[in-house]
Amino acid sequence: MQSSQTKRILGLDPGYGRLGFGVLERDRQGEFLFVTCGVITTAAGELMSERLFEIAKDLRQLIVAHKPALIVLEEIFFGKNTTTGLKVAEVRGVIQLLAAENHITCIEVKPVEVKLAITGDGRADKTQIQKMMLLLLKLQQIPSPDDAADALAIAWTGANKQRLLRLA
Amino acid sequence: MQSSQTKRILGLDPGYGRLGFGVLERDRQGEFLFVTCGVITTAAGELMSERLFEIAKDLRQLIVAHKPALIVLEEIFFGKNTTTGLKVAEVRGVIQLLAAENHITCIEVKPVEVKLAITGDGRADKTQIQKMMLLLLKLQQIPSPDDAADALAIAWTGANKQRLLRLA
Repeated sequence: MQSSQTKRILGLDPGYGRLGFGVLERDRQGEFLFVTCGVITTAAGELMSERLFEIAKDLRQLIVAHKPALIVLEEIFFGKNTTTGLKVAEVRGVIQLLAAENHITCIEVKPVEVKLAITGDGRADKTQIQKMMLLLLKLQQIPSPDDAADALAIAWTGANKQRLLRLA
Repeated sequence: MQSSQTKRILGLDPGYGRLGFGVLERDRQGEFLFVTCGVITTAAGELMSERLFEIAKDLRQLIVAHKPALIVLEEIFFGKNTTTGLKVAEVRGVIQLLAAENHITCIEVKPVEVKLAITGDGRADKTQIQKMMLLLLKLQQIPSPDDAADALAIAWTGANKQRLLRLA
């Protein structure tokens, strides 16, 4: 069990072929420490229901292992590909269900919020975000793959947003 | 338990405020019998994760009660309201997850497929569909509300589609 003063945050970069996750711990001084990050993948040939089932299974394991107090989910940036967007929304539905089932607060952050929070520039690119995450989390190397690094940035942004909302 | 020759089909008209469901049974002669229909509702003021949680709880009860061999889900008709479409997709993700968790085949039907299958006219309106369902299922009155009647039509269409796919 985590102490009452430390708190883990699970950041998720939702996708159905690749879902990035990143876990941070906020210590008693309010500083964020890197815990782990990675990617949940599913095979393109499988039925969507099976892919969602695998994603749920892996997410449940992450929740059991880290007992996050907060799940941060990136909002969908709705591009030209409607089919892709709808499938990512299906994954987001599963994530929100698991959060509710485990009584974990689930908040959303927009891509532009992440860029602003991490770099101070709403138009920052992936490389700038990754370099800042390296500094912020005092890591030896940039987390890979990209989806995992993104998920850490999402966790960081959501945790700060949640803290600000509570102070407001 | 159902006998090996009868089979229940759960049709779903996905939505987050109102989700229509309809259960049919195919008897040993291959004829469809009405079992039940209704609507799962969630309150507008609630968090989306809580609404998905309630929907999942009610769907699990339906699955336990009826042990459907097939779940038929209507595809999203993507209208002008992107936000609504994405939220409906989140519900569809939850439905597909529950299908996989319960080892139930989950297939999709397009709105136009339903109209064609039930009335022979791809541009049929709701009233035409409802009148045909009354005849097809030998009901005394049109099932209400609309979402429940739609779900029965979705179940009927999906069951026939699945049978045709198996014969092909």
